[in-house]
Amino acid sequence: MKREDTVIFALSSNVELADEICEHLNLDRGKIDVKHFADGEILVEPLESVRGKSVFIIQSTCSPVSETYMEVLIALDACRRASADEITVVMPYYGYARQDRKARARQPISSKLMANLLTTAGADRVVMIDLHAPQIQGFFDIPTDDLTAVSMIGQYYRNKNFEDEIVIVSPDHGGATRARKLSDVIPGSTIAIIDKRRTKPNVAEAMNLIGDVDGKIAIVIDDMVDTAGSLMGGIDMLYDKGAKEVYAACTHGILSGPAVERIASSSLKELLVTNTIPLKEEARQEPKIKQISVGYMLAKAIEAIETHKPVSTLFDLFND
Amino acid sequence: MKREDTVIFALSSNVELADEICEHLNLDRGKIDVKHFADGEILVEPLESVRGKSVFIIQSTCSPVSETYMEVLIALDACRRASADEITVVMPYYGYARQDRKARARQPISSKLMANLLTTAGADRVVMIDLHAPQIQGFFDIPTDDLTAVSMIGQYYRNKNFEDEIVIVSPDHGGATRARKLSDVIPGSTIAIIDKRRTKPNVAEAMNLIGDVDGKIAIVIDDMVDTAGSLMGGIDMLYDKGAKEVYAACTHGILSGPAVERIASSSLKELLVTNTIPLKEEARQEPKIKQISVGYMLAKAIEAIETHKPVSTLFDLFND
Amino acid sequence: MKREDTVIFALSSNVELADEICEHLNLDRGKIDVKHFADGEILVEPLESVRGKSVFIIQSTCSPVSETYMEVLIALDACRRASADEITVVMPYYGYARQDRKARARQPISSKLMANLLTTAGADRVVMIDLHAPQIQGFFDIPTDDLTAVSMIGQYYRNKNFEDEIVIVSPDHGGATRARKLSDVIPGSTIAIIDKRRTKPNVAEAMNLIGDVDGKIAIVIDDMVDTAGSLMGGIDMLYDKGAKEVYAACTHGILSGPAVERIASSSLKELLVTNTIPLKEEARQEPKIKQISVGYMLAKAIEAIETHKPVSTLFDLFND
Amino acid sequence: MKREDTVIFALSSNVELADEICEHLNLDRGKIDVKHFADGEILVEPLESVRGKSVFIIQSTCSPVSETYMEVLIALDACRRASADEITVVMPYYGYARQDRKARARQPISSKLMANLLTTAGADRVVMIDLHAPQIQGFFDIPTDDLTAVSMIGQYYRNKNFEDEIVIVSPDHGGATRARKLSDVIPGSTIAIIDKRRTKPNVAEAMNLIGDVDGKIAIVIDDMVDTAGSLMGGIDMLYDKGAKEVYAACTHGILSGPAVERIASSSLKELLVTNTIPLKEEARQEPKIKQISVGYMLAKAIEAIETHKPVSTLFDLFND
Amino acid sequence: MKREDTVIFALSSNVELADEICEHLNLDRGKIDVKHFADGEILVEPLESVRGKSVFIIQSTCSPVSETYMEVLIALDACRRASADEITVVMPYYGYARQDRKARARQPISSKLMANLLTTAGADRVVMIDLHAPQIQGFFDIPTDDLTAVSMIGQYYRNKNFEDEIVIVSPDHGGATRARKLSDVIPGSTIAIIDKRRTKPNVAEAMNLIGDVDGKIAIVIDDMVDTAGSLMGGIDMLYDKGAKEVYAACTHGILSGPAVERIASSSLKELLVTNTIPLKEEARQEPKIKQISVGYMLAKAIEAIETHKPVSTLFDLFND
Amino acid sequence: MKREDTVIFALSSNVELADEICEHLNLDRGKIDVKHFADGEILVEPLESVRGKSVFIIQSTCSPVSETYMEVLIALDACRRASADEITVVMPYYGYARQDRKARARQPISSKLMANLLTTAGADRVVMIDLHAPQIQGFFDIPTDDLTAVSMIGQYYRNKNFEDEIVIVSPDHGGATRARKLSDVIPGSTIAIIDKRRTKPNVAEAMNLIGDVDGKIAIVIDDMVDTAGSLMGGIDMLYDKGAKEVYAACTHGILSGPAVERIASSSLKELLVTNTIPLKEEARQEPKIKQISVGYMLAKAIEAIETHKPVSTLFDLFND
Repeated sequence: MKREDTVIFALSSNVELADEICEHLNLDRGKIDVKHFADGEILVEPLESVRGKSVFIIQSTCSPVSETYMEVLIALDACRRASADEITVVMPYYGYARQDRKARARQPISSKLMANLLTTAGADRVVMIDLHAPQIQGFFDIPTDDLTAVSMIGQYYRNKNFEDEIVIVSPDHGGATRARKLSDVIPGSTIAIIDKRRTKPNVAEAMNLIGDVDGKIAIVIDDMVDTAGSLMGGIDMLYDKGAKEVYAACTHGILSGPAVERIASSSLKELLVTNTIPLKEEARQEPKIKQISVGYMLAKAIEAIETHKPVSTLFDLFND
Repeated sequence: MKREDTVIFALSSNVELADEICEHLNLDRGKIDVKHFADGEILVEPLESVRGKSVFIIQSTCSPVSETYMEVLIALDACRRASADEITVVMPYYGYARQDRKARARQPISSKLMANLLTTAGADRVVMIDLHAPQIQGFFDIPTDDLTAVSMIGQYYRNKNFEDEIVIVSPDHGGATRARKLSDVIPGSTIAIIDKRRTKPNVAEAMNLIGDVDGKIAIVIDDMVDTAGSLMGGIDMLYDKGAKEVYAACTHGILSGPAVERIASSSLKELLVTNTIPLKEEARQEPKIKQISVGYMLAKAIEAIETHKPVSTLFDLFND
Repeated sequence: MKREDTVIFALSSNVELADEICEHLNLDRGKIDVKHFADGEILVEPLESVRGKSVFIIQSTCSPVSETYMEVLIALDACRRASADEITVVMPYYGYARQDRKARARQPISSKLMANLLTTAGADRVVMIDLHAPQIQGFFDIPTDDLTAVSMIGQYYRNKNFEDEIVIVSPDHGGATRARKLSDVIPGSTIAIIDKRRTKPNVAEAMNLIGDVDGKIAIVIDDMVDTAGSLMGGIDMLYDKGAKEVYAACTHGILSGPAVERIASSSLKELLVTNTIPLKEEARQEPKIKQISVGYMLAKAIEAIETHKPVSTLFDLFND
Repeated sequence: MKREDTVIFALSSNVELADEICEHLNLDRGKIDVKHFADGEILVEPLESVRGKSVFIIQSTCSPVSETYMEVLIALDACRRASADEITVVMPYYGYARQDRKARARQPISSKLMANLLTTAGADRVVMIDLHAPQIQGFFDIPTDDLTAVSMIGQYYRNKNFEDEIVIVSPDHGGATRARKLSDVIPGSTIAIIDKRRTKPNVAEAMNLIGDVDGKIAIVIDDMVDTAGSLMGGIDMLYDKGAKEVYAACTHGILSGPAVERIASSSLKELLVTNTIPLKEEARQEPKIKQISVGYMLAKAIEAIETHKPVSTLFDLFND
Repeated sequence: MKREDTVIFALSSNVELADEICEHLNLDRGKIDVKHFADGEILVEPLESVRGKSVFIIQSTCSPVSETYMEVLIALDACRRASADEITVVMPYYGYARQDRKARARQPISSKLMANLLTTAGADRVVMIDLHAPQIQGFFDIPTDDLTAVSMIGQYYRNKNFEDEIVIVSPDHGGATRARKLSDVIPGSTIAIIDKRRTKPNVAEAMNLIGDVDGKIAIVIDDMVDTAGSLMGGIDMLYDKGAKEVYAACTHGILSGPAVERIASSSLKELLVTNTIPLKEEARQEPKIKQISVGYMLAKAIEAIETHKPVSTLFDLFND
Repeated sequence: MKREDTVIFALSSNVELADEICEHLNLDRGKIDVKHFADGEILVEPLESVRGKSVFIIQSTCSPVSETYMEVLIALDACRRASADEITVVMPYYGYARQDRKARARQPISSKLMANLLTTAGADRVVMIDLHAPQIQGFFDIPTDDLTAVSMIGQYYRNKNFEDEIVIVSPDHGGATRARKLSDVIPGSTIAIIDKRRTKPNVAEAMNLIGDVDGKIAIVIDDMVDTAGSLMGGIDMLYDKGAKEVYAACTHGILSGPAVERIASSSLKELLVTNTIPLKEEARQEPKIKQISVGYMLAKAIEAIETHKPVSTLFDLFND
């Protein structure tokens, strides 16, 4: 890896994660100025030359979503105009992933729109983690890498050495495949699915359980936890159905609105998230919320990209 | 609807369906010549003027998939160069829908590639039915309409007036949402999911049932039935788990290879398909295979497009 | 104008102005749902059919700039996918207009980026008012109309029938042409220019006056007033140089941060703005701030577009 | 040539030729999986990393044309998404080359369409041999190299040391330039043209000879031989006009339908083809059909591309 | 044809032809200002509204080629930005048509480049006459109509009622197909081909005749006559080979440099050209040069486009 | 800088400047053939391989503007098709820069059109000097470098060691910022602005002075001098207002029409231009016209681009 030809910039969402990545790579983080003016406009200026270089821009498009997207779009424009050789957006959390289809007439497919905007602004490649739907890779015509934290999450629970039987629970129909994947790396576990209809975002509805959790350790797995509203209802039902303990693991801890408070006051044993989205202070102080880092995995991915090694072999890192 | 400004062409896959649509619309089917030469090249020539007209090309990209795609791409090129005003591809079955994500490193996303090819060749809009994944709509930047035959399928089973309880079964994790939708239009039904891993196309694996089918009428719902291999295993398991009768409904009856024979010799009560893909002779003669037509629905969709009415209200057609 | 084929939507920035426009056009404002979720994501859904219609989306990209841009981009995606015939974005205030060139190495040209994003998302035409630089029209390859409020502003001051000589003052070098234009519609007026360097946005510097204001009514003209910082310094200098009274007129009243307070406590006689950006409560209550409406002009522009009349003749409307 | 940065893949049409090329280049052929499923869909998966590499995909789009095209389009999508640095399609035979203009109203220009599809799917450069019309190079905006086997063909006949005068015969008006080129590399030869009208593909018509073949060795030259129908009629006429012996040389031996049988039973002395299209068994066993290899020429072209040498000097290779 | 929705503009090359077309269509020619400044820059301004209209721009890209191309590109930009509904470029003579392939390494394909430039600038359709190579249609992805003056030329010679046998002569290999087409509309005529190599533009070389002209009326047919250098050599040879009289017909009379003088002093009986390129004064006064008009044919083509009738039936106009 | 990977071509406008640049870089100028045919068509053929190389094309688009643009567009097409790795157009003078906005209804924005044409033809980067408006950089989406000769011009006047006070005069409102910039590098100077309206290109109008020139050395600064008409009127007025001596400096010396004669016979002390546009003979012999070279600055810029150094630091070269 030619360090003098590589620049890693962090915009405002994930400075801490970027520092961890740079440390793993033994690289100084690139200097870049991200200004927000009084009227809300943003100015992004790289403070070191990118001419002919391989640039990595690290930015999750988490809250404030509109601003984190604008930052990355403007940064892309600046780097492209400054003659960067190749620009990779490392977006650990891909905002708008849930608007990935027309659920009703006249809905936008904002997830595709964001892919188009990133490409228009100058992205040459995008690295993401645990996309809400794997089809989102196809929203891009440029190369993408959809890494997964599922191996790391599996490793985390294997280290707990639970004595009871484990059941991996998908909180909705769409997540059944994800539950299956986590179950695959936790030997002896089974899966169950919560059968409910989410008619509008952030609003949960009547639910039922398909599968068996009685007397087991239940681990609810999802790609993200937002207001935690629907997660809450699921937990109570799992205890009702006889679950011994209920854990939850979500790659992306959005935790907006009342989420942290809901988790604190719930019967959930523990919520595991990664640092694709930085935890707000309130969440950092909540003892039920545990966080593991995707920094080493992203550093290895960047190294693979720069040295033309396959990224696909990364996933063995955590399958001890 | 200005009939003199509308031309409906059928390529080689769905002539019968196109005739039904034209009859509903009281329109003559447009004259078009589709030649296949000795060396395999195809020539498509509209035999009537399309200048300034609204053209509908009806073609499912079913087997032989490469040729049905080439036909529609060449037809688009011909119509665009001949100054058609707007070209809508009516593709009841969208071939390559299953290659919609990178399941392994270095896989293509052929489903997106086909969307790009159609757009490049000149499509202005695409009408499809029951896409394998709803995200495929987002593979296009042109308008798409993803109609569904689920209402028609629900109507079909409601008319049977089963006396026993009904359970809608998804044959895999990814289809749980589809099962939920069919269940929504069959009052009193519940859902269950077959928990298996399909590691390679056309090859099934170890399976388990999540949910309860004991003493019930099980209706397995899927978007398509190809070689029917994995469907077969599921049926036996459902009977093992106590299902009273097992039905299956798939919008797209690909039925390739040994599919018809497998169905005939299975304990499946009945397989319901639509005519998005025409049945081969063997399937037409198999009494267990029932077919319902999407012709009226497509005719109404074309009419809505031509008269600038919303297509979304079509779905009430079958919710008597 | 075929009212049944035209839909006018307002997003969140300018509902009041949109209502005024609709009233002038005798049209009901189109129903559209603009939701902001807890995590900051936005969902825009037209609640009435746009299929085959001519759609106008009214939205200034004023503060919160990132969100107003995201709203309009998502609305474009929704309308395009819903088969709108033609979509015109009416953007009375074009956000990011000031980032229109690389002032230093590695700066973005965000103003061009926004033009690219709007086009990518599906805009067919853009109508704007008093662009910061007229070259921004060339950032688009789709048709644009750059209307001007200068005629209206001229009319406003002519109606005051000042007895003293009038001098139009440009607050910086770049605005000299704009001052010339206002002077052209106020018979007998001369122009002067404030000679200063603005090295960073929102920060003013050493200034000097080129031209003569002694004993005259000075009208400072600019396209926008943001924090009003640099405007303030200019006013004092104009009085120092002998101006009898100092007025200011800015098409776009951004008025962010301390702007209103600065104006209130300044020796400025009056600030004239239009409603391209709605005034915040604080500004509405400040007696020194006057507002005139661009509603009638925009209604006439929309009518001209829909009836295929030239927009260019609109400017005579206010040259009584 | 950096062998570790170069990967050469063969799809299903020309594995043998690809092996010959790799042997010339002292390179192992890249591992790639090309699956054809029961329903006709194709899946192409490179089995080794292409990240950052220069990829060559060798595939003639000969019969089955639709499938050979789909293979190469899907392979392009897979390689592009897998971050290949540059992808060159080596297409010794370019299918659909004959549909290169609108011969009648409403015809497609499929040859251009294929160029667009290849570019859309991700091709960065295309290498072809003896295009049906040289203008097809202009159907691409990416770099193309149109190599020619005419030098090799000339060398082949010079080696025969014919004692009689040679006349190069074009089988139709469009091929007169090609006959001229072959004549240029066979000293002392003249040219003649068969004057006929081909109103539909694969159907020949009334013909006449322009030029003189009496007492001479006639070599009919064409870019391709398909069903050999029109070639047959020409041969008899040439003998009628006094030709002593009639040979034919065609770069691309499509030989579809009754071609081989027609040649076997004709008075043609010998048909020379190259291996841009592999001969079917029937043709391999026909003693009148001779084949020469373009492998060395293609290997040299690939080497030139990889080492940034001009490809144009290749043509001297065979002009001993 | 809705005359109020159609505007026909002439740029500087073909004002006379445009007037003739407008007269046939009973339309006033649109007002447009084409200025050439002292430094060579061009400004094109439509002087009447084009908003929502169907615009036809009539311009041959004949000498001065660079300027006639710039005029049409700038006119396209102006019309597109002024919201024209659809813009058709009527380019009776398509400049740069001869640079349609790479004849040597590193040559441009300027003919394709011009197609790209026209499309980029905003052309929606192009109407041309007797393209140098029919494949040039494929250089465009927008609809094109390649009209032909061959029927008119045939009619002209039929009206002469020659008593001798007629032979149509192609001046080079590439034109054999064109000779065949003219022969088809002159009953009883045969064809011959001049066998020569043109190594550089405007320079002829050693030539030979294929076919027989002895005792016949020879009509040399070509798409264009430029400096007439190569045409001259051919004429003498035809007389040498026994031709009784030699005529020449070229759709496009470029007649640059010494062309008119050469024709005047040659043994050529008559040169027939059309008015796709206006004759310079010198040529108008040369009695050997006859001109026929394509005005009626173009008027009919425009009418067909505006009324959505097929253009293809136009060619029967002159086949009395 | 890898000299073997870099090729510098000069087209017909600036051969002398290109030679100077090559000398600074110690590189042989690349061999390229630029032919102009009798009918006005142009053929550009690189005579050495560009495959895989970094190509610089040096060409000002000065008079004859249409031809210099066509040359560079065709050269781009040739280099791209010949597999150049990256093509930088070095365009010291950017023709059509003044048509950068719609000043009236239905005007083209030719400056943007040219940017689109250059990009379409294959430019990867453009280097320009003193653009008429800095926003023109934003007309491109590819990287651009807008160098400035203002530092060099400042250095030139500082070397004169004037004893009188200096005032920098902008000849119009739009140039006030440019005057400010020159003033910044000439310590102690002030600025003044000529207040006039230029309603049509090349035509000046009533003017007035804003600011004070009495008893001072006035240096009129502009980006270009075309016919020098408006400059002339300004000079007389400056003397009328008391200027002691009047100089003028313009980066681009177009000097078309009567410009040189006007300057010779005027009271202007001296006109300073650079060699972005070569002086015609008449101007070379006029003693009042001085020329300084941008060759060293361009050589340094090319070196920076090739060695991936920032171009922005170049401007310190002349700030001794």
